[in-house]
Amino acid sequence: MIKDKVGVGLIGLGTVGSGVYRILTLHREDYKAKTGIDIEVKAVYNRTKEKLDRAGVDAGLYMDLEKLIADPKIDIVVEVIGGIEPAKSIMTAAFAAGKSVVTANKELMSRFGGDLLEAAKAAGVDLFYEASVGGGIPIIHPLKESLASNKIAKVMGIVNGTTNFILTQMTEKGYSFKEALKEAQERGYAETDPSADIEGRDAAAKIAILASIAFNSRVTAADVSTEGISKITSSDIEYASEMGYAIKLMAVAKEEEEGLLEVGVYPAMIPKSHPLASVSGVYNAIFVEGDSVGEVMFFGQGAGSLPAASAVVSDIIAIARNIKFGATGRFGCGCFMKLKMKPAEAMRSRYYLRLRALDKPGVLARISQVFGDYSVSLASVIQKDSGDESAADLVFITHKVVEGDFRRALNEISSLDVVDHIHNVIRVEDSKDG
Amino acid sequence: MIKDKVGVGLIGLGTVGSGVYRILTLHREDYKAKTGIDIEVKAVYNRTKEKLDRAGVDAGLYMDLEKLIADPKIDIVVEVIGGIEPAKSIMTAAFAAGKSVVTANKELMSRFGGDLLEAAKAAGVDLFYEASVGGGIPIIHPLKESLASNKIAKVMGIVNGTTNFILTQMTEKGYSFKEALKEAQERGYAETDPSADIEGRDAAAKIAILASIAFNSRVTAADVSTEGISKITSSDIEYASEMGYAIKLMAVAKEEEEGLLEVGVYPAMIPKSHPLASVSGVYNAIFVEGDSVGEVMFFGQGAGSLPAASAVVSDIIAIARNIKFGATGRFGCGCFMKLKMKPAEAMRSRYYLRLRALDKPGVLARISQVFGDYSVSLASVIQKDSGDESAADLVFITHKVVEGDFRRALNEISSLDVVDHIHNVIRVEDSKDG
Repeated sequence: MIKDKVGVGLIGLGTVGSGVYRILTLHREDYKAKTGIDIEVKAVYNRTKEKLDRAGVDAGLYMDLEKLIADPKIDIVVEVIGGIEPAKSIMTAAFAAGKSVVTANKELMSRFGGDLLEAAKAAGVDLFYEASVGGGIPIIHPLKESLASNKIAKVMGIVNGTTNFILTQMTEKGYSFKEALKEAQERGYAETDPSADIEGRDAAAKIAILASIAFNSRVTAADVSTEGISKITSSDIEYASEMGYAIKLMAVAKEEEEGLLEVGVYPAMIPKSHPLASVSGVYNAIFVEGDSVGEVMFFGQGAGSLPAASAVVSDIIAIARNIKFGATGRFGCGCFMKLKMKPAEAMRSRYYLRLRALDKPGVLARISQVFGDYSVSLASVIQKDSGDESAADLVFITHKVVEGDFRRALNEISSLDVVDHIHNVIRVEDSKDG
Repeated sequence: MIKDKVGVGLIGLGTVGSGVYRILTLHREDYKAKTGIDIEVKAVYNRTKEKLDRAGVDAGLYMDLEKLIADPKIDIVVEVIGGIEPAKSIMTAAFAAGKSVVTANKELMSRFGGDLLEAAKAAGVDLFYEASVGGGIPIIHPLKESLASNKIAKVMGIVNGTTNFILTQMTEKGYSFKEALKEAQERGYAETDPSADIEGRDAAAKIAILASIAFNSRVTAADVSTEGISKITSSDIEYASEMGYAIKLMAVAKEEEEGLLEVGVYPAMIPKSHPLASVSGVYNAIFVEGDSVGEVMFFGQGAGSLPAASAVVSDIIAIARNIKFGATGRFGCGCFMKLKMKPAEAMRSRYYLRLRALDKPGVLARISQVFGDYSVSLASVIQKDSGDESAADLVFITHKVVEGDFRRALNEISSLDVVDHIHNVIRVEDSKDG
């Protein structure tokens, strides 16, 4: 029997949930025409009931959490409350009740996604989570399906709008980090406690999710070597720009050495000619490199009520189609590979180093000597006027080197008597470089 | 019973077909691990047998066309010979034999896609065609699934790599159209007879396919108002650049007025800040605007053996998954809307007009008067030195006007005795403009 009515139980009426309700209600007839399925919100749960009113939800739709999950009219449970619990228990209960789940929960998926996906598969239901990365940008589904033919070499993206807005303001207006953060908070792009964004934890959760799919291996947020943007100064941005680079908070996952994954979030200099360099403000973009497709990029708004809800509702429609044809539960974790994580120590990168040294003969030679001792080969050196007669700012860009070697060299350089101060160290992400 | 072996019959061993064979052979074990399905090329057909050798295909796999389609070992027929016939008959025969089809055939899909998709649905099989637009860039599948929740307002893209390469060379190197075309031919990016590309027919087929999906309505290549790039000169590109625009061959489909589609291919000036402006060389990019997702863009290599084969093989894997779960035939044409096409005459656009006029008082007033008579409102006028004392080059940019009005005004202006010559007329595509 073909099932042409699908009931949705919506849990959470915050930013995303209220958008989901709005879109599903607005487009119900369109979806019916398009898919032949009548998708209807049958029940809504939220911790505080007054949100129903604010989201324009009929109070008659309110249902207790347990009742909602158990209700036979509900085929798909939408979890958009975020956080680990009670979200995780809700999902587990939904699977046990034979319900498919759509979520936007990056925190949960990046920590427990593997188990949850396998649990969904075992229960013969779907667990879709397109909205957990990149807001409305289609990336999870395309990675799983449209790029399924590829062996992926690299996934690299700007997946946090808050930090991208801050870096864009610093670049375009010459703001300091603090000024840019303040503006982001005033505009509602950054939270009062902005640490999850600026320290890179939000991006780490997202790249863990993408890496798991791209490399068919389980990567959790804890596996991601993470560094935020709070140390970036406007001088770094200026120097980078002079040398033809933009500074972006990059989330990167790659398998350069067979069987060893490198997954990290860090500010990096990327060539201005790279498509990611022109992704500005709160936009997100994800770049994927596959063995047959070459390089592809997905770009759009990475956050916001309607973009995220767009992804959630598309997942609902996809599951409704699966339900209609009795084809739910096709995708498990898909992580049949058990790849190891490369220790940060052993990762290879190019580096930008800016330091202040005494302005006298022989200084450059001594610093270069230390780099040489640790097999760190230099691509370029620029000497800058520091505004102080006795000192000079030196900017080094290395070739690709092992992080451990670079850190040891840096350690020794910082203790040289001719070196006054290490300003900053930033990775340089060139697509092709030896 | 779960079917975990899927046989592929490959028809055509040209650029795309040989890539498909190579990828399927190379990654067979990976796909098995990932999907639990053993996907194997069981038979290959090509008009000339010597291609088998060149593509590294075992001669034992050769099979007559009819035998191949009828062979019970074959579940999916891959049609990559291109053109209308025999491709169309092959598909029809495959459906009749209960086989799903994957194709890269933009010509066929843009002309007969509606009927073929309905025929596939009626036969309970899949017809997938991701490779027909944008090479390896995931766009058809994301439009059908990941953006299914949206009412699409606009699809706009650079979908022809040859013309984009030519325009990029003209912009970056100051080449004339002829010089740039010659270089494209030398590099193998343009064919000896380049007309399908430079006259916009290739792009028209692609935007017809995308428009059909985006607007759930049947659009064929014949519905697309098409204009190529051969009239673009390096002066136009220079003027555009001075005013902050890049010139690109745009394929555009939009529904500005409810129920009326505007679908066209034409060179257009787009603001340099627009993400499409920096898509250079043979790259393609497609921009989609939806009511909830906002603006998203898909970017990558629009042609080439492996990128196109990446899309074909991903389609094969998706169908194999459907076969495994008995869920083929879910998507028909999906064109339940019967939208009308807006006549070119009635489309609204901004225009750039460059002409040579006598350099004397009152000329500008006379031209402006004519524009006014036809309700064409001007956004800006620039007077340029023409290198000739008695004449001046005038560049006009209009606000959004009805094409018919603009054409009539232009007609009258060209017959004014003070106007020497109309150099060029190019549309201006701003995202937001009145």
